[in-house]
Amino acid sequence: MGGDHGPQVIVPAALNFLRNSKDTALILVGREEALRPYLAKPHPRLHIHHASQEVAMDELPSKALRNKKDSSMRVALDLVKQGKANACVSAGNTGALMATARFVLKTLPHVDRPAIMTAVPSKTGQTHMLDLGANVDCTAEHLFQFAVMGNELVRAVTGLDAPRVGLLNIGAEEIKGNDQVRAAHEFLSQSALNYIGYVEGDDIYLGQVDVVVCDGFVGNVALKTSEGVAKLLAHLLKQHFRHNLLTRLSGLVALPVLNRFRKAVDPRRYNGASLLGLRGIVIKSHGGADVLSFENAIHIAKKEILCNIPERIEHQVAAHFVTPESSE
Amino acid sequence: MGGDHGPQVIVPAALNFLRNSKDTALILVGREEALRPYLAKPHPRLHIHHASQEVAMDELPSKALRNKKDSSMRVALDLVKQGKANACVSAGNTGALMATARFVLKTLPHVDRPAIMTAVPSKTGQTHMLDLGANVDCTAEHLFQFAVMGNELVRAVTGLDAPRVGLLNIGAEEIKGNDQVRAAHEFLSQSALNYIGYVEGDDIYLGQVDVVVCDGFVGNVALKTSEGVAKLLAHLLKQHFRHNLLTRLSGLVALPVLNRFRKAVDPRRYNGASLLGLRGIVIKSHGGADVLSFENAIHIAKKEILCNIPERIEHQVAAHFVTPESSE
Repeated sequence: MGGDHGPQVIVPAALNFLRNSKDTALILVGREEALRPYLAKPHPRLHIHHASQEVAMDELPSKALRNKKDSSMRVALDLVKQGKANACVSAGNTGALMATARFVLKTLPHVDRPAIMTAVPSKTGQTHMLDLGANVDCTAEHLFQFAVMGNELVRAVTGLDAPRVGLLNIGAEEIKGNDQVRAAHEFLSQSALNYIGYVEGDDIYLGQVDVVVCDGFVGNVALKTSEGVAKLLAHLLKQHFRHNLLTRLSGLVALPVLNRFRKAVDPRRYNGASLLGLRGIVIKSHGGADVLSFENAIHIAKKEILCNIPERIEHQVAAHFVTPESSE
Repeated sequence: MGGDHGPQVIVPAALNFLRNSKDTALILVGREEALRPYLAKPHPRLHIHHASQEVAMDELPSKALRNKKDSSMRVALDLVKQGKANACVSAGNTGALMATARFVLKTLPHVDRPAIMTAVPSKTGQTHMLDLGANVDCTAEHLFQFAVMGNELVRAVTGLDAPRVGLLNIGAEEIKGNDQVRAAHEFLSQSALNYIGYVEGDDIYLGQVDVVVCDGFVGNVALKTSEGVAKLLAHLLKQHFRHNLLTRLSGLVALPVLNRFRKAVDPRRYNGASLLGLRGIVIKSHGGADVLSFENAIHIAKKEILCNIPERIEHQVAAHFVTPESSE
């Protein structure tokens, strides 16, 4: 049971989730003696599955995979593999989760690399973005696969029939971007996706695109940078209202609006990134998730179960990448 | 005379600058007949230098370089080359400006590639970041050169003796980041710079690093993404205060604070990116710059002139990259 806070966040989040979701059961995987103290009394839909080890947040994925065969992460993924759980939600080490998930669940047929996707708020609702760090060096084919997988997830969870897919690029270079991005642009232009072309960093938040595709290095930097800007602005806003008695008073008057604003852009509402391209559903929660955030990640897992995400992606990947000859 | 607004922004910005900077003269380069209407009367320190052509904002840099020998951009850079101007400030096409500047001014000895750098606000002041789009595929050596150049500019303009230099990376991969970044990390670790190691996207705004080094693709996405988030938050904040009569009233009470906040994070105050590594000073203003923004870009040019930036960078690059054997 991972994340920065462990059971003290995850158990209350699970109980809150069960309260709001009467048709679902949860299995807590981790050291039983560490979990019990957070459970005042047994819950009929909350089961504990003991796992003796934990993967540390800074542990090398390869080491975790080799040495931690009874880690909560590994055991939870094994339960998915065995069909005893429909999805795995973890706040643990991202690299280890991805490596272990690939090893245990395997990738879907014709998927070269799984990718990590999340939603971020936009002017008109939300934008989904992938990859966010699973793949630092991507070929054009990888980027195209990410687009197909992301497109299908967004179709499933938002109900949009033809999400607008954009390829993240920069505007400054001679013929925009690098070789991989230019080649992926060609693939996408010839695909059946609703491809709207290149988008730049600021487009992510403008509400003009539904799926933003990029390599994991760029996506991770974009996401973390966004968090940094949001934190900086919140800090400065607070500082300005605290400046003197008069500004404090005006802050007091404005407090309900400021609180509603904070709620609307609360990153916790967006917590829960999907590992796409695997033969099973795996949701990565932010390591520092609090109760509300982690509950949100469980809701995302449930949504993906109800939508049969892996089956849908498998079908789409086959439709896009398997020619009649290659499938024989 | 480029940018999205042309002389109607640039001429008033020049006049404002001259009002605040009595020891400096400016040369407006562009079509004289387009400039004159914006000058009610002659100014003793504002000269006009005619150039018959303009580079379009979407023109291919190679074409601009080949076909626009009398563009305002080219002529302004020629004036720097000839020693008739100490710096060139342009709101035009970034790619064309970089290509023309490289062609006209040439890079400094031992500099492989010029880079684009700008300042962004942080919790404690400002952070400088490069490259922002001049180089999409960078080797470790390029990244190291960017660090040396950026470090020297920050030393010069901020007065910091040993700026904290960080290398932008992501935390999710096995052994963090891609090959180039890992190799650049080795170079930096062994250098005389005050290298603090890897930083992630959110660190840019936390005030714990002074110079953030990355390739141009990543840097451009990070910068544009930041703009997008800031715009989204401003939009939502406004929307929340406009919600109903009560929130409008509280917004009215909070207006002075909100305005001071807006001013503090005003991106116009940070307008003006430096093209580093050239034998001359070139400042790129945002294409959509307004009068205040463009004036700020001119102030940055003046600062770099007073600091002898190209000489300082030449000296540092020589110190870091020229071994006694290779200089003989």
